[in-house]
Formats: sequence, structure tokens, C-alpha cells
Amino acid sequence: MKERTEILEETFRKLTEEKKYASLRDLMQTLYPADIATILSDMPEKLMPAIFRLLPKDLAAETFVEMESDVKEELIKSFSDTELKAVIDEMYMDDAVDLIEEMPANMVRRILAQADADTRKQINEILKYKDDSAGSVMTTEFVALTPRMTAADAINEIRSTGVDKETINTCYVLDDKYHLLGTVTIRTLILARPNETCESLMTPNAISVNTMDDQETAVQTMSKYNFTSLPVVDAENRMVGIITVDDALDIMEEEATEDISKMAAITPSDKPYLRTGVFETWKNRIPWLLLLMVSGTFTGIVITRFEDALKLVPVLFASVPMLMDTGGNSGSQASVSVIRALSLGELEFKDIFRVIWKEFRVSFLCGLMLAAANYGRLMLLEKVTPLQALTICVTMLCTVVIAKFVGCTLPLLAKKANLDPAVMASPFITTIVDVLSLIIYFQFATMILKV
Amino acid sequence: MKERTEILEETFRKLTEEKKYASLRDLMQTLYPADIATILSDMPEKLMPAIFRLLPKDLAAETFVEMESDVKEELIKSFSDTELKAVIDEMYMDDAVDLIEEMPANMVRRILAQADADTRKQINEILKYKDDSAGSVMTTEFVALTPRMTAADAINEIRSTGVDKETINTCYVLDDKYHLLGTVTIRTLILARPNETCESLMTPNAISVNTMDDQETAVQTMSKYNFTSLPVVDAENRMVGIITVDDALDIMEEEATEDISKMAAITPSDKPYLRTGVFETWKNRIPWLLLLMVSGTFTGIVITRFEDALKLVPVLFASVPMLMDTGGNSGSQASVSVIRALSLGELEFKDIFRVIWKEFRVSFLCGLMLAAANYGRLMLLEKVTPLQALTICVTMLCTVVIAKFVGCTLPLLAKKANLDPAVMASPFITTIVDVLSLIIYFQFATMILKV
Repeated sequence: MKERTEILEETFRKLTEEKKYASLRDLMQTLYPADIATILSDMPEKLMPAIFRLLPKDLAAETFVEMESDVKEELIKSFSDTELKAVIDEMYMDDAVDLIEEMPANMVRRILAQADADTRKQINEILKYKDDSAGSVMTTEFVALTPRMTAADAINEIRSTGVDKETINTCYVLDDKYHLLGTVTIRTLILARPNETCESLMTPNAISVNTMDDQETAVQTMSKYNFTSLPVVDAENRMVGIITVDDALDIMEEEATEDISKMAAITPSDKPYLRTGVFETWKNRIPWLLLLMVSGTFTGIVITRFEDALKLVPVLFASVPMLMDTGGNSGSQASVSVIRALSLGELEFKDIFRVIWKEFRVSFLCGLMLAAANYGRLMLLEKVTPLQALTICVTMLCTVVIAKFVGCTLPLLAKKANLDPAVMASPFITTIVDVLSLIIYFQFATMILKV
Repeated sequence: MKERTEILEETFRKLTEEKKYASLRDLMQTLYPADIATILSDMPEKLMPAIFRLLPKDLAAETFVEMESDVKEELIKSFSDTELKAVIDEMYMDDAVDLIEEMPANMVRRILAQADADTRKQINEILKYKDDSAGSVMTTEFVALTPRMTAADAINEIRSTGVDKETINTCYVLDDKYHLLGTVTIRTLILARPNETCESLMTPNAISVNTMDDQETAVQTMSKYNFTSLPVVDAENRMVGIITVDDALDIMEEEATEDISKMAAITPSDKPYLRTGVFETWKNRIPWLLLLMVSGTFTGIVITRFEDALKLVPVLFASVPMLMDTGGNSGSQASVSVIRALSLGELEFKDIFRVIWKEFRVSFLCGLMLAAANYGRLMLLEKVTPLQALTICVTMLCTVVIAKFVGCTLPLLAKKANLDPAVMASPFITTIVDVLSLIIYFQFATMILKV
């Protein structure tokens, strides 16, 4: 992938230097918008808008959509009002809305001023939907058919209107109140006899999502039913748009990145790693580090309280980091498994007892094995009495069981409280488990060793 | 989603009890295969195969594909050879291959015996490709056109062969040696004048992946170019199959789950959380816990060596968990960011110096802020001398810088060594950073406090 665009970049640079603009234009017309966007983004800032202007109108809009937001901003600054209008008119509604959401306020005003009244109305309509809702990522351009149209009518309808629609692979049969009756694929229409009606050809009981539904739900629905576009209906059950599968891929990627970031205690960012500035990266990370540092001091308080007991038996003291690490790792295994299952819609809050029972058995098996391995290691390699080794190993078992219990319940409780389960991952679990495992440790030390 | 199938389950149960099989069959024909699969999987084992038999042939195959592998296994056991053959004949090639890969060896023999010679040959062809390669997930059914066909010819060709193809939305123009010349969408064909040739209508320079490429590369390519299907070519550049976008969604989900699991030190599993048995879950988690437990003992060794110094100044001792936690968290922030960027193809090994420089600046800012906050806390809330607070805070700064350095370089080095970067996440980084931060801590304690 990389090499392809790198070779092309060379060619671009040469053609530009030699001012062979006609050839450059011809070359660009054979390329994919995503490739042109990559190449232009790496060009010197002065040349880039000039080369962009060489693109024919439709390719210009498609290329523009593929660019990172900082490059888009640069380009818009260089556009005349007419150029800006041309690009916006060619864009699909969902891309136009994305653009508005990415740009600073003064640019938004300029963009909206250039959009025609109808586009502006539709953009404002979509902007009303909550971030990350199905409504906010849909596009309003889809092929609508009526139940009494024949296959031949439908194909004619697609011929006359299809050029402005984002996809024609699936068409939607609506009644006169815009209620969705069913879906019919272009494949069905082409394979059908010309005089069959849409009503008889369509798949009834169309699956749809509501504008207010989470975008993640929408993507899971598409993935479950293998759709390439998913209808979106409003509160009155009228069809208002579709989500296309290329956006579904982007959403899925974005949601996974978000979950992964939160699990590592980072505020998620849309931007690629190398395009995020140092200050922004710092801003996404520092609040969590501060919060976790403060909660880490609790472990310090607990450890200080039991310090005197520790000093008496050196091996107890040396085992503290291992016990804390194992607890943290066990807990994060459970929490991350549950968080992922929640994200994929495999689990709900009502499964909490099944989850706890499962994790209890797993943690017991894990704890037993770890305790046994540890007992062997201690007796063979360290100078310990059997009772001291027992103290450490019983603590190990209890720590693992408690860590997995905390790890599996917290994300489910967060979900129930409408918080983000992903925030309940490793770092938080670790802090809680650290404190709990230290307390258990010293209880056992007191009970078994009478320290 | 859940509720929909729950209501239907009730209806299924009633109709079955009352032996109203004709109605049940009619009902099922209005449902989506994914829904039928969900409902049947939750049915009592005795009834399930009987209800499955009510499905018409094509719907039966589609439903079968949507089931979890344990349910598939159960069904196949109940099938007669004729029934098994009917299902396999109706399946797309990629689904047939998935089935073979999921089933135990004795079933595989039975399945292959029922497949016709041509299918068997194609299955074996695909099975040769490495797991997770583009070749292993492709399907061999696609619409091939020749350059000299007109749009009308092409539509006729699709009408006569399209019914057996997994998608007709994008068709592929091949020369007589099966080299891919370009792609033409059904939309273009429908909107074109009937006598235009495929050669003039097609998008040349088709983007394709090689059978040996990673499936992740294939998905990223599809996402980048907004394709709904991606051509796969062999080493001689002949087109052998396509990857469809519904599979791309599955692959993306699977890859994200794999990365997330590895980051939390879990061996990845394909199965949903609640469908993975206790023993299997244990098996996926215990090796990592054992490994990390052993490496955790190193921290214990280090801490014991410096124990005497610690005992002299209680606040130094109490700050150990906080320093270790903050180091671990800082390191995992960096490592997870880099691992995700590697997965999304945003970073390569050659970016290592840019990454280190960026992380150095971020870590310096983070470390400074954490050290300052900590200094304030110590001076206000604890009984410490300024020099003691200084020791702790300088260690904090160094720990954060080192943690982020280790966190960002290890995944890149793993990538370079063809290992999986995701394994280099939090748990490993934590262990390394723990040991390093303790050593630094005691060095500073010796230097500044002369303990």
C-alpha cells in the first residue's frame, strides 16, 4: 500500500516541477480518491491546493472527503466561494455533516452559507442527532420505491435517480407515509421477470434501527444480518436515511480504538497517532495518570500500616509485588473479557450471575494452579517455613478469586449505571485489587503466622 | 434485538407444541437467517433438528451458516447424507471452508465425501492458504466479465449466472488469462448506455490483494477505498476470488478482539464469552498468569535488596506502590497507543524515532505535572522533608519517561522481529517498568538522601 503511493508521489512531484498539469490531471483521473488524498496530504502546502484544483468536480469532492481534517481545513481556506460550493454540492450528506463537525465555527458558517437551502436543511436535521447515534452517521440519499412498481419500473427509477444516491445495491419499498415496508436488492430486481411488483419481490419485515440508537448497535445489526446498508427510521417509524457498510467499517474501527484507549486509561481521540500533537496526547493522558496516582497512594497507606508485620518475615515482604501483580493481571483478564463481550452485544446486565459463577470457577482453577506453582517455587528456592509459604499461597488463591470477581462485576455495574464499561478496565481494577489483596495478605499473616 | 427473537421464541415453542408445522414453516420464511439461527440455537436439543428440517433448501443453508459451531456439529450429526449434501451444495465457498475448519476430523471426512468433486477441489484449494491470510477468507464465486462485452451483455451475463454468486454489486473484468483488468459496478452497468463496452465503463488499475497477504491488510484496503468486495489474486496475478464486506466486518471484529485479548494477557478465542467453557477460559488465561507471576518475583528480589534503605524513611516505603502504579500506567498508555496504530497500519518500524521523540516530549510533560502534583501533596499532607519529597518526585519524572520509552519501543521492536506487537502490552511493560523504577528510586535515595 505504502509503496504504491510513494512511487506516485515521485511522479506527482516531477510533473508539478515540469508544469505538466494536463498530464497530472490525466494521471489523477486513473487513481482512487483515497490514493490522491494520501499523496496530496504529503505535498508541500503551497503546491497542494493548486494540484487539487486540477481535479474534475466529482473526483475533487471524493478526494476531499478522504483527507484528514487538518488538510481539509487548509484546502477550504484556499477555496473561493464558488470552489467551496462545487465541492459541497458533490458531497454525500453524511460526508457533509462529518465536515461540519470537524471544522472550527468560523469555517462552519462559511460552509453552510455556500450550501443550498435544501442541503443546509438536511445538514441541520442530521446535526440534531446525538453524537455516535445512528441518526448522526446516516446519509439521507437512498433509493425509495413504491410497492406497486414493477421490476422494470424500479430499474428505470434507479436509472433516473440512482446517480445521486450513495448506494443502489439495496432499495427500500416505502408506503405513502414513508413507512418502510420491505427491502429489495438490485440483484433481485435484475434477476426478476420485468412485470413482477416490488411488493412481491421485496423481503418484508425489514430490519431497521432508530435514529436515537447507538451507532455500535447499528453496526452490530449490519454485521449480524450481512447487510451492505441499513435503514434508519425516526420516532414515527418513517424512514429517514441509511447507514452504508463503508461507514460501518469506519465506525467499528473507531469504536474498537475507543474501547482500547479507555482500557489503557487514555481519553480516546479520532486522529491517527502521528497526527496527534504532543500537547493533545498529553491532554488525553494526564488526567487519568493524576487520578490513578492519587488512588495509588491508598495502597501506600495500607502497606505502611502493616509495615511492622512485614519487617519480621522478609519473604512476606518480598512477595508483595508478585501478589499485587498477579491480582492486577487476573482482574484485568476478567474485566477486559467482559468489556469486550459487552461491546459486541454478547452480554447484558441480566447475565451478571452467570458471569460471576463462570469467573468464580475459572478464578478458583487459576488461583489453585498459581498457588501450587508458587508453593513449589518457595519451598525449593527460598528459605521459608511451610507455614510462611502457606500464608503466601492462600493469599494468592484469595487474591485471584477476588480480582476476577471485581474485574467481572465492575464493567457490568457500569453498564447498568449507563457509564462506559471500558473505563472499568485494568488500571482501576488494579488499584482496587491492590488494596484488597494487601488487606487479605496481612489478615492471613496474622492468623497463620501470628505476626 | 434481543427482545425480537425472544418474542419469536415463544411463538416457535407454541407452534411446535401444537404440531402446527406448516405455519411454523411459513413463519420462518418471513424471517432472516440470523434470527432463525439464534432462535433454533436456544431450542431444546431434541426439537431443533426437526424444526430445521422444515426450512426450504436455500434458507436452510443460510441459517446453518449463521449458527455457532457447536450447534452446527449437533445438526450435522442428525443429518442424513442427502440432507448434508443439500446444505453443502447451497453454501458459498467461503462458508463451506469455514465449516471444514471448525469441525472435528471425522465430520470433515463426512462433509467432504458429500461435496461434489468441483466443490471439494475448490475447498481444498482454499484450505491450502495460511490461517488469517486473504486467500483463506475469500470466496471463489464472483461475476467475471470480458472487456469487449457491452453493458447489455454484462447485465445478461449477470442475469444468467448471478444467482450463484455471493455478490453482483461489483463485477470484475478479466482478460483470457484471468488477469484483472478493472472493475465495473452494477450501478455503472445500469446507468450506462446498453451498447457501451465493459472496457470503456470499467475503473482500470483495480486494487487487489494477494492470496498470501494478511486478512487485516485486506480489510484495511477495503475500508480505505470504500469497497464492498475486494479482488484476491494469486502469485501469477490471476484473479482467484473476492473478499466480501460482510466478511470484512467479521474479520475486523475478530482482529480487534484478538488485539484486546492479547493486551490483557489472554490467549484469544473465537467463541463468544458465555459460550466458552470454564476449562477453556482457564486454559487461555493461566499460562500468562504463571509467566507474569514468575517475572513478578524479580520485583520482589529488587525490593528486598533495598529493604534496609527503605526502613529508614517510612515515606519512601509508602510511595513504592504509587511509583510502580504510575510507571505501569504511563507505559501501558504508550504501548497501547503504538500497538493500535500498528494494527491500523498508521505506523511502521521506520517511524520508530518519530515515535520515541514524540513520546519523550509527552512523557516529560506528564512526568513534570505528576511530580509537581505529588510534591504538593507530600509537603501539605505528609510529614516529609523537602529533600525526601524531591527524591520521590525526581523518581516519578524519570519513571514516567522510561516507562513511556519502554512502552513505545517494545511493540515496534516486536513488529520488526515479526512477533505480535499486542503481546507487548501492559502486563509485560509493567513488570519491566516496576524493576527499572525501583532501581532508579534507590539510586536517587542514595544520591540525594545518602540512605
